[in-house]
Amino acid sequence: MRVTTHVGLTARALGARGMLLAGRDSGVVKSIRDVAERWGGDFRVEDQVSWKRCILDWKDAGGVVVHLTMYGERLQDREDEIRGNDKILVVVGAEKVPGEVFGLADFNIAVTSQPHSEISSLAVFLDRVFQGRELEAAFPGAKIRIVPSREGKITEEQ
Amino acid sequence: MRVTTHVGLTARALGARGMLLAGRDSGVVKSIRDVAERWGGDFRVEDQVSWKRCILDWKDAGGVVVHLTMYGERLQDREDEIRGNDKILVVVGAEKVPGEVFGLADFNIAVTSQPHSEISSLAVFLDRVFQGRELEAAFPGAKIRIVPSREGKITEEQ
Repeated sequence: MRVTTHVGLTARALGARGMLLAGRDSGVVKSIRDVAERWGGDFRVEDQVSWKRCILDWKDAGGVVVHLTMYGERLQDREDEIRGNDKILVVVGAEKVPGEVFGLADFNIAVTSQPHSEISSLAVFLDRVFQGRELEAAFPGAKIRIVPSREGKITEEQ
Repeated sequence: MRVTTHVGLTARALGARGMLLAGRDSGVVKSIRDVAERWGGDFRVEDQVSWKRCILDWKDAGGVVVHLTMYGERLQDREDEIRGNDKILVVVGAEKVPGEVFGLADFNIAVTSQPHSEISSLAVFLDRVFQGRELEAAFPGAKIRIVPSREGKITEEQ
C-alpha cells in the first residue's frame, strides 16, 4: 500500500471528513473509496485539486489551515488554540509541499521537530484535536464491522 | 520512502528505544541509522530478527507484548493498564503478521477497528502511552536541530 493511501485511510479512521489530493492519482482514490464503501461512513476523496485554490477558498469560507511540518511550532503549544476552530484544513505532504504553503497556512505545526512521517503526524494531530472522541465514532452503512476482541479476528457482515 | 521506514522513524521520533525488524532489509536499516546519526538520540535498529524468539525472550525478561491490530480490544479501554508496564514491545506489521502473534501477545490492541495504517496506529499508541512526554524529548548528539518557528525553516548545525 502506498503512503498516500495510508494518509487517506488514517484521515478517515481518525475522524477527518475527506481528503483532497493535489495531483492525479486514481489508484489512491479508488483504494480509499473502496474502503469507505465497505467500512461505512461518508469520507470524501477527490484528486486533481488545485492546492492553492483549495487553501484560499477554505480561508475565504472562514476555515483555518494547519500545515503539518517538522519546521513548525510545537503541536503541544498550539493545540488548544487550533481546537477552538470549527473548520480545519490539514495540509500534509512531507518534502513535496511547496514553500508558499508556509506563508498561506494559519498554523505551521510540528509533531516533534524530528523527521518521521506525514502519516504519524496526521494521526497524532487528529487524536489530539478530537481529544480521543474520534475513537468512539460510528461508521454508518458499513458492510463489514469488526467486533473488538482479546485474541481473535471477529467480523460481522451486514 | 517506504512504509517500514516510516514505521521506524515514527518509533524513533515518538519515544521508542529501537526497532527490531523480522526479515532482512538493509535499506530500511541504513535509512533509519542515517537519520539517527544525524538527528541524535540512541535509537537502535536491527533486522533479521526472529519475531517469535524476540517475543518469547521479551516475555521471559518480564516485558509485555502489545500487538497493534484492527481486530484487537479498544486502545481507550486498555491504555491505562498498558501504561503501568515498564518494558513494552510493540508488534506491528499489518497483514503480514502471523496469526500466532495474537495468542503470544499480552494485549491485542486496536487503534480504531477501521483499516488504516500501522504507522498511524503506532503513532497514536506511543503518544497515549507516553501521555505526550515524548514530544518534549531531547535527542542528544544531533548534528542538526530544527528551531520550531511560525513560518520558516530554521535549522541549527552543531
